[in-house]
Amino acid sequence: MTPDYDEERIWLTDTLTRKIPMGAAMGLSVERLDDHGLVLDLPLAPNINDKGTAFGGAMSSALILAGWSLPRLLLRRENRAADLVIGRCELQFLAPIHTGFKAICRWPDQAAISAFLSGLDARGKGLLDMTPEITVDDTVAASLSARYAALIKEDNSQSHSQPNR
Amino acid sequence: MTPDYDEERIWLTDTLTRKIPMGAAMGLSVERLDDHGLVLDLPLAPNINDKGTAFGGAMSSALILAGWSLPRLLLRRENRAADLVIGRCELQFLAPIHTGFKAICRWPDQAAISAFLSGLDARGKGLLDMTPEITVDDTVAASLSARYAALIKEDNSQSHSQPNR
Repeated sequence: MTPDYDEERIWLTDTLTRKIPMGAAMGLSVERLDDHGLVLDLPLAPNINDKGTAFGGAMSSALILAGWSLPRLLLRRENRAADLVIGRCELQFLAPIHTGFKAICRWPDQAAISAFLSGLDARGKGLLDMTPEITVDDTVAASLSARYAALIKEDNSQSHSQPNR
Repeated sequence: MTPDYDEERIWLTDTLTRKIPMGAAMGLSVERLDDHGLVLDLPLAPNINDKGTAFGGAMSSALILAGWSLPRLLLRRENRAADLVIGRCELQFLAPIHTGFKAICRWPDQAAISAFLSGLDARGKGLLDMTPEITVDDTVAASLSARYAALIKEDNSQSHSQPNR
């Protein structure tokens, strides 16, 4: 069954720029969502640093959102009431960026997706490793290697009694 | 000689919120700068995510800025015309944050500072490892382990001919 990418793109744009206001502050837009994966587009101006290049925090934010989006869409397609959070991750900044830039992420392979969903069913926790990249003119300027965890949502009355977990 | 922390705090606030506009979008302020180190304060609202907790990208941005600020002040005190950039780094997200938060960084020890400055003199490149933390009510919610590099500024006419380096 082909996913309704147009509908998903509208939902994802709303999530990344309205529910996460930093996405709007960064001028983020969803340039492409298809069978290959996701491309986020970001202008330089709101993301600039004191050296006139892209701020490392803006790059890390764009990478974290790009890596999060595809597992989040998988959970939505499967109708799973789970939070998706990032745990430990590693960032590499390879070259300064003097223009707008793109954050690109490819879909995980089918085996990884199956393990992600079956972990969620069996243990209430599904893990997925994602490796989004920042590119400028098809050159990789930064990359992220991150593990995302989907966690079955706790009952609200419980989570209120444990505000830090 | 005691540094003029009041003057440095004004300069740093301008750098982190005007020269790096994402700092202003995040509502960042310099809460404290003294012999212990630096405390940045951030409210939740501009940094919230779809789950109502602090967005990982906002935490990573605050950590990257906290780690960058102290070496940047060292270069300024020593009057060195060098850019300060972040290379590879590792982030750990330990607990969700439901309120405003602080990004805290301690000064490196004197041996590390000496090696940083002598590397800049001898090879045009000084390295410094920084480990800022995000805290809420004195509990660590996220941490960064990052290597920052100070690089002697190239001549402008050269860097114009190499826009991606």
